[in-house]
Amino acid sequence: MKVPVKVEARKQIGVIGAGACGSEVRTLAERVGREIAKRGAVLLCGGLGGVMEAAAYGAKQEGGITLGILPGALREEANLWIDIAVVSGMGHARNALIAQSSDALIAVNGEYGTLSEIALGLKMGKPVVVVEPGWKIEGIHRAKSPEEAVELAFRLTENKGTY
Amino acid sequence: MKVPVKVEARKQIGVIGAGACGSEVRTLAERVGREIAKRGAVLLCGGLGGVMEAAAYGAKQEGGITLGILPGALREEANLWIDIAVVSGMGHARNALIAQSSDALIAVNGEYGTLSEIALGLKMGKPVVVVEPGWKIEGIHRAKSPEEAVELAFRLTENKGTY
Amino acid sequence: MKVPVKVEARKQIGVIGAGACGSEVRTLAERVGREIAKRGAVLLCGGLGGVMEAAAYGAKQEGGITLGILPGALREEANLWIDIAVVSGMGHARNALIAQSSDALIAVNGEYGTLSEIALGLKMGKPVVVVEPGWKIEGIHRAKSPEEAVELAFRLTENKGTY
Amino acid sequence: MKVPVKVEARKQIGVIGAGACGSEVRTLAERVGREIAKRGAVLLCGGLGGVMEAAAYGAKQEGGITLGILPGALREEANLWIDIAVVSGMGHARNALIAQSSDALIAVNGEYGTLSEIALGLKMGKPVVVVEPGWKIEGIHRAKSPEEAVELAFRLTENKGTY
Repeated sequence: MKVPVKVEARKQIGVIGAGACGSEVRTLAERVGREIAKRGAVLLCGGLGGVMEAAAYGAKQEGGITLGILPGALREEANLWIDIAVVSGMGHARNALIAQSSDALIAVNGEYGTLSEIALGLKMGKPVVVVEPGWKIEGIHRAKSPEEAVELAFRLTENKGTY
Repeated sequence: MKVPVKVEARKQIGVIGAGACGSEVRTLAERVGREIAKRGAVLLCGGLGGVMEAAAYGAKQEGGITLGILPGALREEANLWIDIAVVSGMGHARNALIAQSSDALIAVNGEYGTLSEIALGLKMGKPVVVVEPGWKIEGIHRAKSPEEAVELAFRLTENKGTY
Repeated sequence: MKVPVKVEARKQIGVIGAGACGSEVRTLAERVGREIAKRGAVLLCGGLGGVMEAAAYGAKQEGGITLGILPGALREEANLWIDIAVVSGMGHARNALIAQSSDALIAVNGEYGTLSEIALGLKMGKPVVVVEPGWKIEGIHRAKSPEEAVELAFRLTENKGTY
Repeated sequence: MKVPVKVEARKQIGVIGAGACGSEVRTLAERVGREIAKRGAVLLCGGLGGVMEAAAYGAKQEGGITLGILPGALREEANLWIDIAVVSGMGHARNALIAQSSDALIAVNGEYGTLSEIALGLKMGKPVVVVEPGWKIEGIHRAKSPEEAVELAFRLTENKGTY
């Protein structure tokens, strides 16, 4: 036992997108996850399949930490790459927790669920970056590649990183 | 005391929109509320100001019942025209409850919070009607007037009215 | 159309208890519901079976208004005597909304779910009345009959009734 | 970049207790946290002060990982020893998430908030261990020391550890 040093809170970057996706979108999400982990941030997502799974898989390739905030009541629903699971049991209302717990959100593709998270993020004043193509909503930042999206997300949260 | 007849569940129509608005939007919301009450449905909203207050005011003009699902932890935050208050204390996550508890949603103006409710409603498969102008999202129904919006909301929930 | 008078917010009294119960407990819950309605308050409950159903049934016998805050995502899960349903879709976390939305809580029998609502109510500073027998927790008020419990609940919220 | 090995989900042990406490209780909580980290589980708590802070501090002494599920809307409210913060913004309703996300709960002292978490945990079928003295509720396991409590929590979740 030793006296620990105060935790230096890592950034928490949320990755949002559809729960089912093709291989092209999957690759984009994986690259987002890798880049987030490389930069030392925690990858936060909804913990299920599709974009969420691919991003978590990417993060684990780089030794990152992954947090999944699940809608259901069973931890077993988490994808294989989730380190820490919040089992919310609160359905779609958990989308608000994903937005609120992220320093910035990165959207990869996605449908109405993703749109709700984008909107909640913007409402809360969080930086929201969309990897093109994707939802076009005023106030969103757009990036041409996964790496640019993560770069942008970090830049936009620069003065908020230490807590 | 007498044996009651089984409650015939009224439709619950959610009205969503900005918490602060000008008189033009206010009038639109009031007309939406009046029309909902005339048709015997419960008006459901977020319970605060702006569009929410105007719609509830309209409903009370016609003797309707109003339900407000508040984000905060104090019932006193409800506007003056709310009959029944759900004091959620859960912030933005309450938007999901508004969408989930409504048979249909009618949006009057509104910003990111409203957009999140529209998206959640669409995700849940609820009919969403926007009084023009307003958010343009694929899957939304559009109406040129408050009365047309309510008419549309009722039509789209026709086979779901009895429970 | 006429200008409505400001809503005089009714008290909202929460009735909590097991989702399945025998006829003796059922009768107690029904009497609680009747007494709440007679006094003009809204009966709030979890919207399901057992004590929740019996209390709502009692309230409807006296022409009261009943609000059910359901754990699931389907309004159809509400019992037959619920006028207005909040479809929370948030599972056990909805217990906090029942406590927060009630001016006072009355517990009839009940197990761990009820205990969680009692504890949340006490934490929030709400009066909690238990119809004997029932959970024994410091800070709870105890009543020998349903009528006494409702009488007590009203007395303990006397100065909080108008908003 | 390399292909990661499937995450071996760690146990998540929730520590619950009052948000303010004296040094004796503080020491108990710290010992609980140390023991949880020594055994390789994630320490989950409400992220605030008192027992939550002491337990997280203990876990960090042993190099553990700490997860805080905060009631408020600001990550800055987390205590200094929280690695990963879920910023729920949903007030007391977050207690349900703490219970649902924990494989087992360990209570150290605590008042009504803690009691609500104990009750929710029991309702969800989770093992709940109380470090003596503390709430006496049927169905709870009791332990004479922090170390015994953690030992018991691990034993009671033995067959649930792999996912």
